[in-house]
Amino acid sequence: MAVAAPVRPLNVDTTIAELRKLYGERVSTSHAVREQHGKDISYHEAPLPDAVVFAESAEEVQQIVTLCARLKTPIIPFGTGTSLEGHISAPNGGISLDVSRMNKVLQVNEADLDVVVQPGVTRKQLNEYIRATGLFFPIDPGADASIGGMASTRASGTNAVRYGTMRENVLSLPAVMADGRIVKTARRARKSSAGYDLTRLMVGSEGTFGVITEITVRLYGIPEAASAAVVSFDDIENAVNAVILTIQSGIPVARIELLDEVQIDSVNRYSQLDLTVAPTLFLEFHGTEAGVKEQAERVGEICHEFGGGEFRWATRQEDRNKLWQARHDVAYASKALRPGCKLWPTDVCVPISRLAECIVETKKDLAGSKLIAPLAGHVGDGNFHLVFLLDPDDPAELAEATRLNDRLVHRALAMGGTCTGEHGVGLGKMAFLQAEHGEGLAVMRQLKKALDPQNIMNPGKIFTI
Amino acid sequence: MAVAAPVRPLNVDTTIAELRKLYGERVSTSHAVREQHGKDISYHEAPLPDAVVFAESAEEVQQIVTLCARLKTPIIPFGTGTSLEGHISAPNGGISLDVSRMNKVLQVNEADLDVVVQPGVTRKQLNEYIRATGLFFPIDPGADASIGGMASTRASGTNAVRYGTMRENVLSLPAVMADGRIVKTARRARKSSAGYDLTRLMVGSEGTFGVITEITVRLYGIPEAASAAVVSFDDIENAVNAVILTIQSGIPVARIELLDEVQIDSVNRYSQLDLTVAPTLFLEFHGTEAGVKEQAERVGEICHEFGGGEFRWATRQEDRNKLWQARHDVAYASKALRPGCKLWPTDVCVPISRLAECIVETKKDLAGSKLIAPLAGHVGDGNFHLVFLLDPDDPAELAEATRLNDRLVHRALAMGGTCTGEHGVGLGKMAFLQAEHGEGLAVMRQLKKALDPQNIMNPGKIFTI
Repeated sequence: MAVAAPVRPLNVDTTIAELRKLYGERVSTSHAVREQHGKDISYHEAPLPDAVVFAESAEEVQQIVTLCARLKTPIIPFGTGTSLEGHISAPNGGISLDVSRMNKVLQVNEADLDVVVQPGVTRKQLNEYIRATGLFFPIDPGADASIGGMASTRASGTNAVRYGTMRENVLSLPAVMADGRIVKTARRARKSSAGYDLTRLMVGSEGTFGVITEITVRLYGIPEAASAAVVSFDDIENAVNAVILTIQSGIPVARIELLDEVQIDSVNRYSQLDLTVAPTLFLEFHGTEAGVKEQAERVGEICHEFGGGEFRWATRQEDRNKLWQARHDVAYASKALRPGCKLWPTDVCVPISRLAECIVETKKDLAGSKLIAPLAGHVGDGNFHLVFLLDPDDPAELAEATRLNDRLVHRALAMGGTCTGEHGVGLGKMAFLQAEHGEGLAVMRQLKKALDPQNIMNPGKIFTI
Repeated sequence: MAVAAPVRPLNVDTTIAELRKLYGERVSTSHAVREQHGKDISYHEAPLPDAVVFAESAEEVQQIVTLCARLKTPIIPFGTGTSLEGHISAPNGGISLDVSRMNKVLQVNEADLDVVVQPGVTRKQLNEYIRATGLFFPIDPGADASIGGMASTRASGTNAVRYGTMRENVLSLPAVMADGRIVKTARRARKSSAGYDLTRLMVGSEGTFGVITEITVRLYGIPEAASAAVVSFDDIENAVNAVILTIQSGIPVARIELLDEVQIDSVNRYSQLDLTVAPTLFLEFHGTEAGVKEQAERVGEICHEFGGGEFRWATRQEDRNKLWQARHDVAYASKALRPGCKLWPTDVCVPISRLAECIVETKKDLAGSKLIAPLAGHVGDGNFHLVFLLDPDDPAELAEATRLNDRLVHRALAMGGTCTGEHGVGLGKMAFLQAEHGEGLAVMRQLKKALDPQNIMNPGKIFTI
């Protein structure tokens, strides 16, 4: 159950009526549609939007934003609804602007290793579309998220250690800003020093400045050779230390992921695997045949040094896909550990030198709690996740998760880390931004006020104004 | 000769008097010091600052900015004065804030592959300092620029094709903003989704938001093996096409630089080399012994396919250094081609698929002109430079350079490129930003007004308010 908005926006009925005149059946106020658009898979209890409108072009997005700006009605951009911190909820009410039908790949620039997509294109759809080109798009949050949503939350995933996050991989985007203007953030050149970095201003802004209507992202050649391996450790500190030494040695691993024993147990059950129930690294190497072999040998030696077991290899594409799909399905696997539970996923990121300590202390907290919370992470970046599995009817469990999450975030901040490595702020991490950014948060508010003085773009996310 | 400011800022004498009370001899109004701080090596004729103050700590920077803010006196941050588009000039008068004495490396985090430096640390100084760690900082504009200045102009250099630019390599920085607040843009974690990307907002902002007082940048392991090679081509289009195919093949070259025949001639003379006077690529490969060999073989095949000659190898560190120092000295080498000339360096960047066409058309323009302008470029990024060699006493030459530069920039823009890949806007590229960014330029102005409402931070650069 999502809670009701405290106050309906003043002109929302007029806005809905005007939208209906323009878009007819493509405007919905049904509870089911609003719930599907206002509730993500997380624990957040937040109000639903008052209506949903399905846009089919940049021109329509511009028309909708202009209309809402005139009537001061909040707009919540919506891609696939797979964000994890309540980004799509409507604490101030308003209109969910669904861009999922804007799902065309517009231009594949093979020669330039980039592609222009509409915001509703999902990461899997894109990779399917470009398969024949020999190129791929590496950013892979767990869900099959939309590229627009991924840009908005500055998403990353398992490949970020090698290929970067959305921060590094968005070349340019046009967006409809809060006043209805269309702004293109940059040209398609790989680099530029021509003024402020509007691209990076929009990436990670969680829809609080405008609605992204197109995105140009970087592509990479599918490596000549790739192989994946799984290796388990007796204790989690050793596993993390193997990761740290790998990164410090500058070995260009494509993926280096940690799953704790609780997570491995869940993955074995959910994805029909038979992995040793122990702290485990999932690894992938990309390169030439010789390069992959060389990297694998060096990482093998490092893992051995820290007491890691034998590598279990997955070299065939289908075996690699099975392994990584299992990794991407950890949220569902976690949920299945406790039928009927609801999830509270959280993530932090710390300098890698502090990662082992951060994870060990976090595991101690969990050992002293009755809550179950599998741990998995993009540990090559210093980034890891917990997913608390909560009884939806037990406020004590929510309180306990709140306590543990607070401790986790403050631990990460004390280590020079951040309250979220890749999920974004949404509603869930708002309380920590003052501690993380200090005066920087005031600067963020100034930017928001400059570009959205009416506070209509996804209001009540990142910060309240 | 630099020209006088049209109007002295209202309170500048009071500002200078108050600065003198605080900093005594560290405030200078001598013409020689002002000229050294207001004139870069480029052709720009712009007013000098009214005074120069040498800051020695972040606290002093904060005190100076607060004082100037109270008196509405413009501040022009100054590092080494090696920028190329008039960034350090004072079109509105004011105080040059020299941070070159803030030149300490504060904290080398070997385990995290990052380092915290004061803004006056130069790139060579940093690499010298960290040599024993086995790490290096790859960003290398031609000059031995300060890291603060490099962050401010979003600098790159020869290694950007492999290691990125300042955009990707600044992790975090504190700055004194226009109102005297100190703002830290981010934590030291490798990635974060915790709100707006203030780091990227500051990187490339050319001192128009605040004064950077510290910078955390990424470091990389010195590769196990490295080798450099030189290969010449019969025509420039073939050379560029070899670059394009190399990039498209995903070969992780560390450096791939083009010098045209005019530039090679200059480099031979200035750096005592004996290269074939022809369009030439300077290449470098980083990796393991086997990886370097493999990359070199593949690039060798590609160059051969496009009619490239034999590779001339430089594998010993001293030979590689000599080669790259020659590359970095192209501005001086160019200047020596025409004794007494002044330089007008310019750069553009285009999607790599258009690079050959852009360079060929630009060379045609030059062939039809009496001006000499050697061409060199970080062609792996689609970025190249011309340096016009001008008679300082001949306005016709300045007019001709203006014409050719306009054509170059509009050609790049028409190809989806940018008016500057790495030099920045300063004064020199201001006229092109409307054509490049359209409404985006209005957004940049809004950001500037929000964060510097008095327009005291490096006013008259990037845009006029």
